[in-house]
Amino acid sequence: MDKSLRDRASRVVPGGMYGHMRASGLPDGYPQFFARGEGCHIWDVDGRKYLDFMCSWGPIVLGHHHPVVDAAARRQMEQGDVLNGPSERMVELAERVVGLVTHADWALFSKNGTDATTTCVTLARGATGKRKVLLAKGAYHGAVPWCSPHPYGVMSEDRAHILYFDYNDVASLEAAVTQAGGDLAAIVVSAFKHDYGQHQELPDLAFAQRARALCDANDAALILDDVRAGFRLTLHGSWDQIGVQPDLSAWSKAIANGYALSAVMGNNRFRDAAAALFATGSFWCGAVAMAASLATLDVLEAENGPEHMRAMGQRLRDGIAEQARRYNLGVRQSGPVQMPTILFEDDADYARGNRFTQETLKRGVYMHPKHNMFLSVAHTAADIDHALSVTDDAFKIVAGL
Amino acid sequence: MDKSLRDRASRVVPGGMYGHMRASGLPDGYPQFFARGEGCHIWDVDGRKYLDFMCSWGPIVLGHHHPVVDAAARRQMEQGDVLNGPSERMVELAERVVGLVTHADWALFSKNGTDATTTCVTLARGATGKRKVLLAKGAYHGAVPWCSPHPYGVMSEDRAHILYFDYNDVASLEAAVTQAGGDLAAIVVSAFKHDYGQHQELPDLAFAQRARALCDANDAALILDDVRAGFRLTLHGSWDQIGVQPDLSAWSKAIANGYALSAVMGNNRFRDAAAALFATGSFWCGAVAMAASLATLDVLEAENGPEHMRAMGQRLRDGIAEQARRYNLGVRQSGPVQMPTILFEDDADYARGNRFTQETLKRGVYMHPKHNMFLSVAHTAADIDHALSVTDDAFKIVAGL
Repeated sequence: MDKSLRDRASRVVPGGMYGHMRASGLPDGYPQFFARGEGCHIWDVDGRKYLDFMCSWGPIVLGHHHPVVDAAARRQMEQGDVLNGPSERMVELAERVVGLVTHADWALFSKNGTDATTTCVTLARGATGKRKVLLAKGAYHGAVPWCSPHPYGVMSEDRAHILYFDYNDVASLEAAVTQAGGDLAAIVVSAFKHDYGQHQELPDLAFAQRARALCDANDAALILDDVRAGFRLTLHGSWDQIGVQPDLSAWSKAIANGYALSAVMGNNRFRDAAAALFATGSFWCGAVAMAASLATLDVLEAENGPEHMRAMGQRLRDGIAEQARRYNLGVRQSGPVQMPTILFEDDADYARGNRFTQETLKRGVYMHPKHNMFLSVAHTAADIDHALSVTDDAFKIVAGL
Repeated sequence: MDKSLRDRASRVVPGGMYGHMRASGLPDGYPQFFARGEGCHIWDVDGRKYLDFMCSWGPIVLGHHHPVVDAAARRQMEQGDVLNGPSERMVELAERVVGLVTHADWALFSKNGTDATTTCVTLARGATGKRKVLLAKGAYHGAVPWCSPHPYGVMSEDRAHILYFDYNDVASLEAAVTQAGGDLAAIVVSAFKHDYGQHQELPDLAFAQRARALCDANDAALILDDVRAGFRLTLHGSWDQIGVQPDLSAWSKAIANGYALSAVMGNNRFRDAAAALFATGSFWCGAVAMAASLATLDVLEAENGPEHMRAMGQRLRDGIAEQARRYNLGVRQSGPVQMPTILFEDDADYARGNRFTQETLKRGVYMHPKHNMFLSVAHTAADIDHALSVTDDAFKIVAGL
C-alpha cells in the first residue's frame, strides 16, 4: 500500500512528497504514508503498528486521537469553526495563554509556526523602526525565504538584514549586535539549540541573560521561537525555566495536540505594534482548533504533562545510556529529555544511527536517526520499557557490525 | 455578549482584534464575535441570526456546517489527522485536483492562501533563476512583507524585485516587463480584479493572453492567484473560463468548505522546481482538511455548485439592479455574480454603502459595504428573494436620506 501510494504520489505530488515529512530523508524501510494514531501508537497504511517517538514531529503532546481534545473539537464543530469573525473561543484562549505564559500580555493566533515567527520579526521591525534581525546559525525558524534552511528561490535581498551568531556563544552574539550598529530590531533565539542532525544544547544562562540585556540596551525585541518546544517543557514559556523573559514569542506544534494553530505572544511594550501590524489569514480565527487548544492546555495542566514527559524522557535516557555503556557504543543523548536526540559518536554519515533506527522500526518503535524526537503524555513507563527492550536488540545489532 | 467579549479581547488581543476580521473596519452595529453557522445562516454571540453573504470571507462554499463535508471530516478524525507523514487522503486529493484543474499536473498542500502565493513566487524564482515578480497595483496576495497591503514592518528590500502594473492594462504590463529586463521570474494575476473597496473587473481576454505570451517569451511563470475565487466560479481554474492557462496557481478559501487548507498547483514545466523547493509546515499534511476537501469537491461537482451560485448570484444582481433603478440610486454591481460587489456611485466615503448594509444587517442580512461578497451552494432562490425584500427596505431608507 505504501509502495502503491508512493507510485501514485510520484505522478501528482512534486518529488512524491515535499518538506520535512519526505521519507526520502529517512533510511530505507520507513513508511511514507500513515493511516491512524491512538495514544502513543501510530499505524502506517500497511497496518504496521509503531510505538511513536516523533509525535507527528511535535504537535501530538497528549497522544494521538485524545478523547478530551477531540470531544472539545467535535462540540465546537457542531457550533461553528470559520465564521465571519472570531468566536468566544479566541478570547478564552488568549486569556488562557496570557494567564499561563509568564511574559505574555496579549496573544494573536495564526496557523503555521512560520506565520508566528514571521509575524514576530515583522512586528519587531515595525515597532523599533529598525531592520537588523539576528538569528543563530543553523537554527530552524520556518520555510520561507527570510529563514528557510534551503536556499532554493531565495534572493540575497530576502536576507539583506539578517545577521548570524552562534547559539550559546556570547562573543558571537555581541559581535553580531555590534555589526547591527544602531539598526538592531531583534534577536531571535530558539528555546534550545535543536538544529537538525546535531547534538542539542540547552540555553546557557549567561548567554540568555546577555541576549536579554543586549535587547534592552539597544531597544530591540528579544524573540523566543518556542514553536517546537512550547508547552512541552513547561506551560509558562521555555525560557521561563531559566528566568529570562522574551518580548515576543512564537508558538505552534503542541499548542492544540495536532489541530492546526500557532500563536504570537507579547508583552505590553509591543502591544500597540501588534495592533498596528496587518497579520491575517482566512482560517486564523477557526474556533475548532482553539477549542482543541483550550482542552489541550487543560489536560496538560491537570495532568502536569510537562513533568510526566520529563519523567518518561528521563527513563528513556537512562535506559539508553545504560545500554550504550553495556554494548560499549559511543552514544550521545542531548536536548531536554522530553525532546530527545540520540546520535552515535563518530557517525558523520549517520550509518550507525540509521541502522539503529531501522532496527527499532522493524521491531515497531518509530525513532528518528537525526532529528530530535518527542515524548507525549500518552507514553507510559511500560511503553518506555518496551521501547528499551527494542533498543537493546538494536544496539546489539549495531555493536556487532 | 459581543460587547463584553470586546472588552475582554481588548485586554488580551492586540487592538481587540487583528486582520481582515476586525469589526472596526465595518460600520457601527456589526458584530465582532460569532457563535454558529448553518447553511447560509450565521448567528452572532448575542443570538442574532443573519442570512450570510460573506461566507466567512470565502471559505464557506457549500454552506456552513455542511453534513457531507463534516461527516467526512469526522470519519477522518477517527483515523488520524496530523501524523508522522501524509495519509492516503493527500494522494487522493492531489489526483482529484489534477483531474479537475486544467493546467495542473501536480499539487502540493499548505494551510494559508499566503503560503500558496509565497510558494508560487519562490518557486518561480528558483525555477527561472530570475528575480523580478510583477504584481497588479492594489491586488491582495497575502499579509506578509513581500505583498502585504499594509507596510508596517515592511522594508524596501522585501519588495526590491517587485514591479507593478495595472490589472487589465496591457501597456502597463508591457512596461513592467520591459522594466524587468532579462530578470523576469513571474507575472502574478488574480482571477479577476477584486481590490478592496473598488469596482471589480473580470479579466480582459487580450490582457490575459498578453500576460501568457509575455511569460512564454521571457521564460517566466504565469502565476494565477486563485485563492479567493478558485472552485467558486468553476472547478477547472478561474482563467480556464477564458482559455488562458497559468503555469502555477495558488488556492485556498473554498477548497475545503472552511477547513484550513491551501494548495499550489503547477504544470510539468515547474514539477522539478517544486520538488527542489523546501516548502513545509507542521500541519500541512493534516488528513482531516484533505478529507473535507475531497468531500467539498465531490459535492461541488455533483450539485454543479458553480452554476448554482451563478444562478443565485444573477438573481441577486438582477433584483438589486431593478431596486436601484426604481429608487433612482446610482448603484454599481461588479465582479462575477457568485462574488458580488455592490458599491454606490459618488460614495467616496462609503456613507451610503455603510448605511445600506447597516440597514440590511438590522433586518438580518449580513452584507459588506466595501469588500466583495460570496454566494454559496446553500443559498436558495427563496433566500435571495428574502434578501431582496430586505435590500428593498434598505434602498428605500438610503433614497430618503
